[in-house]
Amino acid sequence: MVLMTFLQKLKAAMQQNNSLFCVGLDPDVAKLPTQFKDSAQPLLDFNKAIIDATADLVCAFKLNSAFYEALGTSGLEQLKLTAQYIKKNHPGIPVILDAKRADIGNTNQGYAISTFDYLGMDAVTVHPYLGGEALQPLLDRADKGVIVLCRTSNPGAAEFQDLQADGQPFYMHVAKRVAKDWNQNRNCLLVVGATYPEEMKSVRQAVGPDMFFLVPGVGAQGGDIAAIMAAGLGSNQNELVINSSRDIIYASSDKDFAQAARQRAQATRDEINKHRS
Amino acid sequence: MVLMTFLQKLKAAMQQNNSLFCVGLDPDVAKLPTQFKDSAQPLLDFNKAIIDATADLVCAFKLNSAFYEALGTSGLEQLKLTAQYIKKNHPGIPVILDAKRADIGNTNQGYAISTFDYLGMDAVTVHPYLGGEALQPLLDRADKGVIVLCRTSNPGAAEFQDLQADGQPFYMHVAKRVAKDWNQNRNCLLVVGATYPEEMKSVRQAVGPDMFFLVPGVGAQGGDIAAIMAAGLGSNQNELVINSSRDIIYASSDKDFAQAARQRAQATRDEINKHRS
Repeated sequence: MVLMTFLQKLKAAMQQNNSLFCVGLDPDVAKLPTQFKDSAQPLLDFNKAIIDATADLVCAFKLNSAFYEALGTSGLEQLKLTAQYIKKNHPGIPVILDAKRADIGNTNQGYAISTFDYLGMDAVTVHPYLGGEALQPLLDRADKGVIVLCRTSNPGAAEFQDLQADGQPFYMHVAKRVAKDWNQNRNCLLVVGATYPEEMKSVRQAVGPDMFFLVPGVGAQGGDIAAIMAAGLGSNQNELVINSSRDIIYASSDKDFAQAARQRAQATRDEINKHRS
Repeated sequence: MVLMTFLQKLKAAMQQNNSLFCVGLDPDVAKLPTQFKDSAQPLLDFNKAIIDATADLVCAFKLNSAFYEALGTSGLEQLKLTAQYIKKNHPGIPVILDAKRADIGNTNQGYAISTFDYLGMDAVTVHPYLGGEALQPLLDRADKGVIVLCRTSNPGAAEFQDLQADGQPFYMHVAKRVAKDWNQNRNCLLVVGATYPEEMKSVRQAVGPDMFFLVPGVGAQGGDIAAIMAAGLGSNQNELVINSSRDIIYASSDKDFAQAARQRAQATRDEINKHRS
C-alpha cells in the first residue's frame, strides 16, 4: 500500500467532494445542545454527529487543540478518538490539528510525536517565530502537513505581522522563507486569514500559484468568500482550504444541529464553488 | 488568605532559597535511569525525585509541555500530578508551564483554562506573533505569569527575530510592546535566551530594570552565566530566572541521578550568585 502525503490526501478529498471547505471541530462543552449534557464524552459524541453530517461536503476537518485541552485528559482522549473516528469512517478526509505549536528543535520532536504519532493527525499548524531550524523535526515528516502562521485572521494581527522590514511586512518575510527554504519536502502550507484579502493577494503573488493556504475566518469572524477566492486561488483553482467552525457546528442549538450544520456546510461549499472558474 | 501573584511567589522563592535558578523538568522517557522502566508513571516518579532533591535550591520549576504530550493522556496526567506534587510538598516554589501557546482570542480562553485551571500552573510561555489583542484572555489572569517569547535560545532564532524594522530588530519591537502595552496587570515576563547575551543587554536597556526574564539555554545549550548576569540583571539583582533542564536532570544516568542533579543544581545556583553584587 502506497501511503499518501497530506497534500495528496487533501487534493483527492477536494476532488471527491468537489469542495475547498473545511469544518472546524472546535466544540465548547458549554455551548453544545442539551442532549450531550449527560454524555461521558460530549465533544466526541457531538463531533461524530457533525462529521457524519458533513464528511461528503468537506476537503478536511480541522480540530483546534485548545477546546480539547480545556477538558484535560478527557479532552485529549476525545481529540484522539475524534481523529480515529474520521480515519475509520471517512478515511479519505485529512485531519488537521490546529495547535499552533513551536519550540526549539530538541523539543519539537515531542510535538511531532504527540501530533502525528499519538493523535494520528495529518497536519499541524505552527508559529514561525523560532525559525525553520527549530521546526526541522516537524518539517522532516514529509508525509505530514506543516501549516505555518503567516497572516492571521484576528483583529490585532497587524501589531507585529505588519511591521515593515526591508520594505515588506513581516508576514511577507515568513511567506517567502517558507516557500523558498522550508518547503524542501513540499509539505508546507501557510495560514492566511479570510479577513484580510488584500494581504492574501500579496502573499499569493509572493509564493507563486502552487502553495496551499489554510484560510480561517469565514463565518463567525466575518471573512468574505468572494474576496478571498479572487485574492487567493492559485493555478489549479483549488489552493485554498477555507475553514469555518462556530458558524457550522452551532448552526442550530437544538436537536436538528447536525442537519443544520449540513445545510450550512453545503451552502458554504456551494458559495465557494461559485467563485471557482 | 491573600493569594500571591506569580511574580510575588517568584520573588519570595528567590529570597527564601537565595536562588535565581530554575530546574526544567523535561523528562524524556527513553533517557530515564533504568529504575523507572517498569513504572506506570515514569515521568512523575522521576520528577518527584528531582524535585525533592532540588526544591531548596531553585526559584521555580519549569515543565515543558512537549515532553509530556508525547505520551498522550498518560503524559498529561503526569504533567498535572507533577504540578500538584510541587504545590503540595514545596508550596513556595512557582511552577511554569513552558507550552509556547498562542491562538486567536476566543481560543486562548481554552488555553487559559487548561494551563491555569486544569493543570494548576502559575505561569505559561506564549508566542507573540498574533499580538496582544489575541493574548488578552491570558493577560487578563492578573495572578498568573504570561512569559512572552522575545529572543529565543535556539541557533536559528535570528531568522525572523533579527529582521530589522524601523532600525530595530523584531525582538526589540516585541520587548517594547510587552513592556509598554501588554503589561497592564504587571504579570508579563520575557523569554530571552542565555545564548545571546548581547541581545539580552539591548532588551534590558529597552524595557527598563524591573521586568523579569526567563532565560533558557544554560547547560546543554551552552549559555554563559557570567555573560548573561552582566547583560540581564535589573535594579534588584534578581530579574532573571535562569533555567537548565538536561544538564541537571541527566547529571547522572545511574541510581545516584537525584544526588547528582542536586550537586549540579547547587553548583549552578552558586555560580549564578557569584555574579550578583
